[in-house]
Amino acid sequence: MKGIFITFEGVEGSGKSSQVKLLEQYLQQHGYDCFVTREPGGPPISEAIRSLLLDVNNSEMVPETELLLYLASRAQHTAQWIIPALEQGKIVICDRYTDSSLAYQGGGRKLSADVINALTTFATRKLEPDITYLLDVDVEVGQQRISNRTLDRLEEESLNFHKQVRQEYLKLANRHKNRYIIIDGSLGVQEIHELIVQHIKTHIRSL
Amino acid sequence: MKGIFITFEGVEGSGKSSQVKLLEQYLQQHGYDCFVTREPGGPPISEAIRSLLLDVNNSEMVPETELLLYLASRAQHTAQWIIPALEQGKIVICDRYTDSSLAYQGGGRKLSADVINALTTFATRKLEPDITYLLDVDVEVGQQRISNRTLDRLEEESLNFHKQVRQEYLKLANRHKNRYIIIDGSLGVQEIHELIVQHIKTHIRSL
Repeated sequence: MKGIFITFEGVEGSGKSSQVKLLEQYLQQHGYDCFVTREPGGPPISEAIRSLLLDVNNSEMVPETELLLYLASRAQHTAQWIIPALEQGKIVICDRYTDSSLAYQGGGRKLSADVINALTTFATRKLEPDITYLLDVDVEVGQQRISNRTLDRLEEESLNFHKQVRQEYLKLANRHKNRYIIIDGSLGVQEIHELIVQHIKTHIRSL
Repeated sequence: MKGIFITFEGVEGSGKSSQVKLLEQYLQQHGYDCFVTREPGGPPISEAIRSLLLDVNNSEMVPETELLLYLASRAQHTAQWIIPALEQGKIVICDRYTDSSLAYQGGGRKLSADVINALTTFATRKLEPDITYLLDVDVEVGQQRISNRTLDRLEEESLNFHKQVRQEYLKLANRHKNRYIIIDGSLGVQEIHELIVQHIKTHIRSL
């Protein structure tokens, strides 16, 4: 595929969405055609699944259901939006992707990584990001940053759960060094953006 | 588990729901505690997923999403309703279960049976029916019977799709002879019920 697939990962409050916006602006200013999206979500079918996943009333949801819904949402998102955009040569920037399932449902809920990987291969038609920016931040710092938000079903989870998620992200980054860039998420928004720009320039030579 | 898990399978219009009701009445009259349910559906989370699946507006749904949603719905249904009822010693009667995924998404949509089986094992925590009644009927006869219904997204599929579904059911019945009972779905409602009663008496000796 002609495009570039960039994902952002990190615990809640790590500052992903601000960085997604800044990177999009930067790339557009330099003449690149970007397609920005987020998970869970995407096209209407995926967004409908997102609503089920994040609804705090769905507290009886078992871990298997949760994982399968994330993957159903991702399957639709990938087939209907992400792959076509990449085929058109766009830079696709996605806030969360497969690694979120490995971190949250694997690290957090303790579902088997082998099962998650097998399901993911099926759901994504084997699509993998070219670059993944992990905004790594202390869970307490992240929680502090989102303390004025109304929390969704996953954000409501315990501090310990989120610590396991963070550890799993660091393991993933270590396992996929070819595409993972770990960035200190405790830095200021502008500082982080500059680190990302510095890296993206090494990947897109014409920048 | 102490209970008995009975499933009904067949193409649209094969008469499953009438037989489910008649079997429930029969078993209750004989003092058995039944729990009747259907797929896709079950507890509120599963029903919400069912609505997404059957919504005719969701015509852009890719086969991977469809399968994952069916399995998400089944995972919740199995963990929250079916397994607890079986543990309480109930006779659980379910209108459609795993074999529907193999017949519709495997036989109809041509997704790999290996993938469906692997996903199913995960979603159902390895639960399998004790008895499966396949109401086998000519697809044209089934379609004729439902011709006055408002069709859902799957019922709207072509005649050829439903013929492949029927063939897949017959293959499944052949592969799982230990639990499959094939019944001629073109017979009258009462005749079919009597055949089922005749069989269930061989399974539940005290009837």
